[in-house]
Amino acid sequence: DDSWEVAGRKFTSRLIVGTGKYKDFAQNAAALEASGAQIVTVAVRRVNVSDPKAPMLTDYIDPKTTTYLPNTAGCFTAEDAIRTLRLAREAGGWDLVKLEVLGEARTLYPNMRETLRATEVLAKEGFLPMVYCADDPIAAKQLEEVGAVAIMPLGAPIGSGLGIQNRVMIRLIVEGASVPVLVDAGVGTASDAAVAMELGCDGVLMNTAIAEAKDPIRMAKAMKLAVEAGRHAYLAGRMATRKYADPSSPLAGLI
Amino acid sequence: DDSWEVAGRKFTSRLIVGTGKYKDFAQNAAALEASGAQIVTVAVRRVNVSDPKAPMLTDYIDPKTTTYLPNTAGCFTAEDAIRTLRLAREAGGWDLVKLEVLGEARTLYPNMRETLRATEVLAKEGFLPMVYCADDPIAAKQLEEVGAVAIMPLGAPIGSGLGIQNRVMIRLIVEGASVPVLVDAGVGTASDAAVAMELGCDGVLMNTAIAEAKDPIRMAKAMKLAVEAGRHAYLAGRMATRKYADPSSPLAGLI
Amino acid sequence: DDSWEVAGRKFTSRLIVGTGKYKDFAQNAAALEASGAQIVTVAVRRVNVSDPKAPMLTDYIDPKTTTYLPNTAGCFTAEDAIRTLRLAREAGGWDLVKLEVLGEARTLYPNMRETLRATEVLAKEGFLPMVYCADDPIAAKQLEEVGAVAIMPLGAPIGSGLGIQNRVMIRLIVEGASVPVLVDAGVGTASDAAVAMELGCDGVLMNTAIAEAKDPIRMAKAMKLAVEAGRHAYLAGRMATRKYADPSSPLAGLI
Amino acid sequence: DDSWEVAGRKFTSRLIVGTGKYKDFAQNAAALEASGAQIVTVAVRRVNVSDPKAPMLTDYIDPKTTTYLPNTAGCFTAEDAIRTLRLAREAGGWDLVKLEVLGEARTLYPNMRETLRATEVLAKEGFLPMVYCADDPIAAKQLEEVGAVAIMPLGAPIGSGLGIQNRVMIRLIVEGASVPVLVDAGVGTASDAAVAMELGCDGVLMNTAIAEAKDPIRMAKAMKLAVEAGRHAYLAGRMATRKYADPSSPLAGLI
Repeated sequence: DDSWEVAGRKFTSRLIVGTGKYKDFAQNAAALEASGAQIVTVAVRRVNVSDPKAPMLTDYIDPKTTTYLPNTAGCFTAEDAIRTLRLAREAGGWDLVKLEVLGEARTLYPNMRETLRATEVLAKEGFLPMVYCADDPIAAKQLEEVGAVAIMPLGAPIGSGLGIQNRVMIRLIVEGASVPVLVDAGVGTASDAAVAMELGCDGVLMNTAIAEAKDPIRMAKAMKLAVEAGRHAYLAGRMATRKYADPSSPLAGLI
Repeated sequence: DDSWEVAGRKFTSRLIVGTGKYKDFAQNAAALEASGAQIVTVAVRRVNVSDPKAPMLTDYIDPKTTTYLPNTAGCFTAEDAIRTLRLAREAGGWDLVKLEVLGEARTLYPNMRETLRATEVLAKEGFLPMVYCADDPIAAKQLEEVGAVAIMPLGAPIGSGLGIQNRVMIRLIVEGASVPVLVDAGVGTASDAAVAMELGCDGVLMNTAIAEAKDPIRMAKAMKLAVEAGRHAYLAGRMATRKYADPSSPLAGLI
Repeated sequence: DDSWEVAGRKFTSRLIVGTGKYKDFAQNAAALEASGAQIVTVAVRRVNVSDPKAPMLTDYIDPKTTTYLPNTAGCFTAEDAIRTLRLAREAGGWDLVKLEVLGEARTLYPNMRETLRATEVLAKEGFLPMVYCADDPIAAKQLEEVGAVAIMPLGAPIGSGLGIQNRVMIRLIVEGASVPVLVDAGVGTASDAAVAMELGCDGVLMNTAIAEAKDPIRMAKAMKLAVEAGRHAYLAGRMATRKYADPSSPLAGLI
Repeated sequence: DDSWEVAGRKFTSRLIVGTGKYKDFAQNAAALEASGAQIVTVAVRRVNVSDPKAPMLTDYIDPKTTTYLPNTAGCFTAEDAIRTLRLAREAGGWDLVKLEVLGEARTLYPNMRETLRATEVLAKEGFLPMVYCADDPIAAKQLEEVGAVAIMPLGAPIGSGLGIQNRVMIRLIVEGASVPVLVDAGVGTASDAAVAMELGCDGVLMNTAIAEAKDPIRMAKAMKLAVEAGRHAYLAGRMATRKYADPSSPLAGLI
């Protein structure tokens, strides 16, 4: 009953997982299953298209039951990203895509100027871009205005596992958004995912936290539960904090 | 398969919930069920024993299927706590008990001197005391030595909802303990419970975080999931953190 | 000897203070003196120009000994900000200015698209813009490229006093910058200012933390010391952290 | 004018520094001077008493102008600590001493049971013990009751440089204490020292943060400033935090 929608498509899982850094496609598929995710994101530029005899991700993760979300990892200009997604659409018909236009290799921080430009072009061409972006509430609104169907602010640098650095800004983005907000990048362990959801996000995308855990399958399960936990906690409305203690049992009137 | 044991008793749920601050016994019972907890803790001194016509908690939460863990909330001396638990044993036969000897009303911080003394006496009398205590790794070992069957350090003041304040000390206590360690007090929302478990604790006890949530039943569900998430994340072995970004998809060799 | 330069101008104080929210100009001047700041920032649009009989800030803070840094507080478009600064230059000859183009009243977060555009125009017109901006390392480089003489990322929302939210990004901005980086906004107390400096920033700008302290003059003094403390700590090179204790005195070979 | 007193002795500096881990006595003396500290603490058991030809700390730091505070580093029982301090008193006449009774080498956490016992014995023998202790507000009051002249809770494990882990408890100890409270252990850099003072502590004791900095002399200077900054900030009364932004300059009525 607690589903969410992006661009008219409905999902019950609020966790999106990646397809990088796994030992092999079989492990990736097993982690996906344990995570309960209904969406996987795939770097278009990494997909094997030249060697028909090499193994294919689609042999392990069925595109009929799992939504493939092509992404533009490795693109450093709007043009690059646009071209990559046009290719993806031609090849596979995808229109729901994840746009990322990176600024540099060191931080993998988004280039927001290029990201805004690419979002606008893609939206005009009929794409439905979910957009990796800075934790910037004004840029988030601008992305919405030019056609982003979801806002995906980073929690911390991609692959860093440092957790949600700026809770204030994620909260302000959520409060201001009229499309789904998903934290993308920075999650390192289960509690980080729960924090993202407790801030009111609609979902979380992660790759390294699962793929680089000692036991990726179990971590995928942990992330599934953490996202659900954080979502329920958000909906439940947490207690207020107190500066002093407050007894669970009244201190007066004891026998 | 991932069960834990305290004093020879085996449990699969790692969440212990309280029985204070709820609207009524029915809500308390519903929250317990949503939490999946197999243990409830009850303040002996608050239990209605004088008015046989007033409602009884046992009418709502069946002692045959849920383990009752009598506690000494409201006791400020070792004597007080010992007397209270003797009463509980006489009345209901309980020997697995939760000892808390508080230092003052303002902080509800444990009086560790009295707590140590009470633990020793109780253990000699055949009680199996699970002990609310400071996040002090040396006192934790001393409690073990005199008979504590579980160490229950506070995460933050009782009823404050401030979350785990001192992760360093909880980790050091876990590393040094040979009996179960459960964070008791301070959890405010789901991610706090996950953090406790990620530090390697065997379980978490909470009351206010559930009872004072706007929707206690849903928060109980959130806490169930968060404890499981944190436990799985701990067992899975989290990724290492990085100071810089690291791409999920290799940046070289792109098409 | 530890001075810093912005646009060829040399300063020994690394603290810049504001001129809003004070009880009166006299208190503002006293706080400035206690802070040791050599630069004050003034909202051009708030300056009294119509009533020659009203008190003037320049009667209290001498522009000959203190550098006035006109800012564009209250401007929500590039045009607005540019027009405001042209006015300031005409009136007082200022070219070293602080640009802020805000996105909305709720967050007072910068509109980075407009900020970039305004920076470019202003630089071409000969202004030397110090630029309030997001904690975005890519945008920081873009600002530099179009002529920003200093990068001024927010630590937290203006006037919030929440402290430096995203230490990771401030550090990454500092590492990548070739112009001075000053944290602007978010400082609430002395340790926040020290943290900014320990991350390697060249300076800190603040207003509310001083003006809204119970004793603004003493807080100004605290901020002076905190900025110096943080700067020295950064230059001194802090110790590495340890997961376990390490004795100051060797544990072996004791008498 | 902002001095503090411990056991009737008045000091203007609120920083106490150690004498371990320095390259040599000359560096230690130089760091002391840069720190402005009026008290140094010395591990009695490490003091050279057997070789009259070896260099002596007292040749570098004059006991006539700097208060020597003998400490019991390396003592793991009350007896050990008491014996060590008796020795110190016999040798040098000291009665103002720093008691530490450690629980184990791994954490160097205080053994509070032994610490309480030693404090009581020492006080009865006329010593004036400043006591290294857990961040436990109840134990702090018990230490006071048996004669501690200052309470010195750890901020983090000795030599870890992890900073103040539990601000809630340090604050609660300060609120409850009627003798001076000094954070002892855990400070890693200047902002940590400022935080301790902002919580209302009367002072800070540190060793490794200065001795292991790349430039110990400059770090000593940083710590001097940070302690003063934090003290002024505490006395000045910091601004309240806000969840949203608040303009320094009114947004209405602009020209």
